[in-house]
Formats: sequence, C-alpha cells, structure tokens
Amino acid sequence: MAKRAENEQPQKAFGWAARDPSGILSPFHFSRRENGDDDVTVKIHYCGICHSDLHSLKNEWGFTKYPILPGHEIVGFVTAVGSSVHKFKVGDRVGVGVIVGSCQTCDICEQSLENYCPNVIFTYNSTDHDGTNTYGGYSDMIVVHQRFVLQFPENLPSDAGAPLLCAGITVYSPMKYYGMTEPGKHLGVAGLGGLGHIAVKIGKAFGLKVTVISTSPKKEDEAINKLGADAFVLSSDPAKLKAAVNTMDYIIDTIAAVHPLAPLLSLLKMDGKLVTLGLPEKPLELPIFPLVLGRKLVGGSDIGGMKETQEMLDFCAKHNITADIELISVDNINMAMERLAESDVKYRFVIDIANSLSPS
Amino acid sequence: MAKRAENEQPQKAFGWAARDPSGILSPFHFSRRENGDDDVTVKIHYCGICHSDLHSLKNEWGFTKYPILPGHEIVGFVTAVGSSVHKFKVGDRVGVGVIVGSCQTCDICEQSLENYCPNVIFTYNSTDHDGTNTYGGYSDMIVVHQRFVLQFPENLPSDAGAPLLCAGITVYSPMKYYGMTEPGKHLGVAGLGGLGHIAVKIGKAFGLKVTVISTSPKKEDEAINKLGADAFVLSSDPAKLKAAVNTMDYIIDTIAAVHPLAPLLSLLKMDGKLVTLGLPEKPLELPIFPLVLGRKLVGGSDIGGMKETQEMLDFCAKHNITADIELISVDNINMAMERLAESDVKYRFVIDIANSLSPS
Repeated sequence: MAKRAENEQPQKAFGWAARDPSGILSPFHFSRRENGDDDVTVKIHYCGICHSDLHSLKNEWGFTKYPILPGHEIVGFVTAVGSSVHKFKVGDRVGVGVIVGSCQTCDICEQSLENYCPNVIFTYNSTDHDGTNTYGGYSDMIVVHQRFVLQFPENLPSDAGAPLLCAGITVYSPMKYYGMTEPGKHLGVAGLGGLGHIAVKIGKAFGLKVTVISTSPKKEDEAINKLGADAFVLSSDPAKLKAAVNTMDYIIDTIAAVHPLAPLLSLLKMDGKLVTLGLPEKPLELPIFPLVLGRKLVGGSDIGGMKETQEMLDFCAKHNITADIELISVDNINMAMERLAESDVKYRFVIDIANSLSPS
Repeated sequence: MAKRAENEQPQKAFGWAARDPSGILSPFHFSRRENGDDDVTVKIHYCGICHSDLHSLKNEWGFTKYPILPGHEIVGFVTAVGSSVHKFKVGDRVGVGVIVGSCQTCDICEQSLENYCPNVIFTYNSTDHDGTNTYGGYSDMIVVHQRFVLQFPENLPSDAGAPLLCAGITVYSPMKYYGMTEPGKHLGVAGLGGLGHIAVKIGKAFGLKVTVISTSPKKEDEAINKLGADAFVLSSDPAKLKAAVNTMDYIIDTIAAVHPLAPLLSLLKMDGKLVTLGLPEKPLELPIFPLVLGRKLVGGSDIGGMKETQEMLDFCAKHNITADIELISVDNINMAMERLAESDVKYRFVIDIANSLSPS
C-alpha cells in the first residue's frame, strides 16, 4: 500500500472526497507536495462543479480510484512561487483547470495541446509525475506546475468565472478548431446545461446566430430572454424539428447521454459540422447518408490546451462572458450533486471554498 | 402513363436496361432529346460499371424507377454541339460522370458544387428538367448540357480513364476538402475495390504514405506490388490491427457494407480524419470516446463538382493515374454484375460500348 494520503506529501491539505462509488463526499485530510522551482501554490477560493465530477465520483466511466477528490474549475490566489516562476507572483489571482501536467516535450505539447498529450495528468483522479494520486479543487490549496496555471483576467469575477476553466474552454476550443466562428453563420447548441449555456454566450460573442435545441419546452424562455439565444427548437416536437431542417451551419452537441444523431444532422445545411462534447458510455448511431450526401462531419473535442485556455479567458473577459451560477457552501455539496444528477441547476454550481471550507 | 421511353423524345437511342428488381439487363430502345443550344451530343465509346449501378439495378436503396438504364462513367466523342457551346466541338473526346444537371443558380452551384445542389439531376434514375427519366451510359449516345461535360485529357486512355469520372472524383474530392493531401502524411485506405484502388494511386500522387486496410489477406501482395501501396494492415487480425494503432493521419473508408468504425478510428492519430464514402443502408456504430479524446472526425463526401472533376482528370493525366480494368462486351454485362456482387473484379469493369453495342 502507498502511504496514507495524509502523510505522503509534506504539505497538509484539506478537502472533501468520496471513498466509494456511492460518491458521497465528506471531509478528507490529505497532503500536497512542496512548492518546487516551477510550481505555483494556490489558495483556493472558488471551485465549480462539473458534470464530470459526478461521473467520476460514481465511477460511471469505470476508471475512478478512491478516495477521489474532484474539482477542476479552480480560482484562487497565489501564496508561493518557485525560483523559476516569473509569470506569477504571490497575491496574483489565478485559475487552474482540467489538467495539471503533461510530458511537455512531445509534438502535441509543443503545439500547446497538452490536453491531448498521451501523458496528460488530470487535476484529479490521475497519477502525478511522482506516482501519487492527484486531488482536485474541492480543497483548500493546490500546488501546480506554472505551465498549467492561468492568469485570471481582472474583470472576470472569481465565482462566475471559475466554470470557464472547464465548460468555457470545452466549447471555445472546438469552435476555433473546426472553424465555427464565422460571423453571421448559424450555430445550434444541443442541450442547455453547464456547457450549453456558455456555448450560447460564446457563440453570440463570435457574432453567430444561435439557436438552442432542447427537448425541454420550459427552456425556451430562458434561452432567448435570459441567455440571449436568437431562437429555440423543441427537438421533441417533430413539426418544430422539421421546420428547422437544413438551416444550421454548426452544432455544438453538449448532450452527455446516449442520443440519436440523425435529428441533429438533419438540422445542418450542406457542409455542416456537428461537434460532440459529451462522453456517452455507449456508441451513438451514425446515419451515413446525411454525412455523404451533405458532406457533413461529426467531430469530437476535449477541453483545450493551456495557450488556448488563456486566450479563452481573455476573450470571455473582453466580452463579459461568465457562467450563470448557484454559489453553495461546501456543506451543501452532496445535495448539489443530487440536483446536478437531475439537471436541476442553472447552470453551474460553484463552491464558495474560501468562506465555507474549514478543517473539522 | 408517360409516353413510352422509345417515343417520348425525338432522337432514337439504344442501350441495356433492367425492367424490375431482378436487375437483369437486356436490350432497350428508348429516346433522347434534340441537342439544344447549350447541349453536347456524345457518341459513347466506353462506360464503367460502378457499384452504385448494381445497388440501383436491384433497388437496394429503395428509390429505383424501372426501367433503369445505368452507367455514369462515360467516355465518348462529340457528334453535335448547340449554338451556345464554345468549349467543345464535334470530334472532341469528352467525359460524362455522375451528374447531368442542377439548378445552376443556387449558392451551391455557384461554388461549382453542383453535385450537392438540391435539384441535382443524376445521369440515370433521375428526373430531368423536362420531366422525363434520365438514362445512363450503357447506351449508344447521350445529350448533356455543356456544364456537365468534361474535357478528357489527351494522354488518358478512354477505357481505363472512364472510371475516374465516378471512382476518381469520389476519392479525390474529399482528400482536397478535408485537407488530406499533405506530403509525408499517412493515409489508410479501407477496402480495396473500385474506389480503394484509385485512392491508393491518388494518395501516392499527393506524396502520402499509403496503407491498405482490408480483411482479405490475399490483397496484400496486390496492394503493395501492383498498386504501389507502402503497407498493408489485415484488419481481421487483432495483432496486426493493434500494431497499427495510432499511426495514420487520414483514412478513406470505401467499405459499402455495414461495418464497425471503432477499429478504423483506433488507427488514427490525434486530429485524424476518417472520410466515409460508401452508403451502407443502416447507421454505423460511432464510439464517441476516440472522437472526443483524440479530436478525431468522421466526415462524408459524395462525388464532386464539375470544376473539381475537371481538375481531377487533369491531375490524373499528369500523374498517369488510371483504373485497373477488365474490359467487357455488353453481352457479358449480367455476368459482370454477378461477379461485381461478389467483389470478383480487379478493379473496375468497363463496357466496350463502341465495339459491342448494336441494336438487335
């Protein structure tokens, strides 16, 4: 057995972790490494709750190692920097997102696509360079190599800005990579949750016409009047779906569950692009005729690299894009997970770590 | 009932057609329109046999109108031109491919993507502007609007060049559109039939490393020693498949039957692109994890537009690319269809119309 989490590293740390696939979170004493030459130590103030956290807590993807301490939408303040760190200083407000390490030498890392490096280290539930497990942001502090720390722009609020570190980059990166940013083009956003509601805002900032596609009629008012979408398609209504056939240039598909692609593909014009961001556990049915006859494509994308994540934060700051959040104390975290499982959140829970986390 | 095919147009024509889903072809008297101001009349010398012809003869896609007279890889000589035709003159050698009409006014046509025009008219089994059925190249002559007639480059042979008009453009167009032409990159070609063997040749002409992916071990020698592929992956052998995982930049998937995409996607590197050209009648299973985690895409493509088809012919002429063919007389056409159904052809049948078709 490895040393107990509390003693394996020199710095004491505290957070909330789950011990088994019940996923129930409870107070957890663990430890972090010393701040190395290239490291930045961050006192965590806020951490968003991503749907991946819930999947991982309950081992729904099958690769969770317990204890698991989630959280990868972290905003806080620098409390220490190593001797090789010049980009950050004590007191800076910074962000930490989904990844905290990679090989830093491969072709992929050289393009700053660290998120796709075969040796990527995720912020939690991953194995760090020193062989220890990584623990995420539902905790008081974190030590991160400077490459994986982000400058948090001045006019972004810490709480509502935190979800950009995962949800924001996850929708921004594919829009850039697949060329879905041409002003005046028509973007469909399938699913209006944590990712979807930010996709609407980023789409509008790129100058796109944005239509929300959802099976839930009660989201129409919210999508248009609160989030600024231009239109709404109730995909469970065949007549409304039919009226929107062949009208969209791009679709960002944020639906995490197994779902049919055929209706979404039918909404795309010729040369239309559908990018899927969710990770359903079973394959989806892909009808080939619309792909071939309309030269359409289905692509995937997973978060984004460090350079692009900084670019996204700066873009969101410039366009005043933040998440719509419900701020909770850490005591309410298990209730929040139950509500998240029922998609009962508008649109992201953020934990007020600084004001509610203290070792019992 | 419409007028009988023999009398509905002023010009007598003769070919071989099928009357019902048996797909059996037999001699057929029909008629063509007068050569209009924008028309080119072509005496057909050669016509390739495409797998689509077989699908259509047997109504496997469900939209065949009988009688059906297939053939859309046509090479012949001009015998008449209309008063507005300046690009062609009597005696020119020309090609006619998969399409003979479109609206010519929409945005899509303006980009010379006539093949994707909502009002595209296919060379056979389609409804022409005048409401009559279109009949293809298993016939003595055809009348085609000049926009849909191609100059056939001098050094391309008429017989082995004919299949380029469908098989050639069908593989060339997606390679250009999806950016699969960067010299030194690694192209996988899944399926070694009419499309696949030309994809190997075009891939090599673009300077790619080309690997044939097939379930048939006997194709290895042929792929490498005859067609010039660099390597061969026997996809039915898990060990050989595993050894090739994560090595390819692009895959052209020419497999027409329902087949698993997961093994092909596993062969792609990060940012890899799989383009599917076949039209399986059922949806394929699309695993989402490799798409998302490797930022891979699956796209479709259907033949190509007129401008690009001319470009492809000129490219093939420059690089001495032709199809490997078996030349047959029209009397052997039903036997050829039986062999095609069993993939028993290397790699394309071409009918020697000029020397074997005569009205009985």
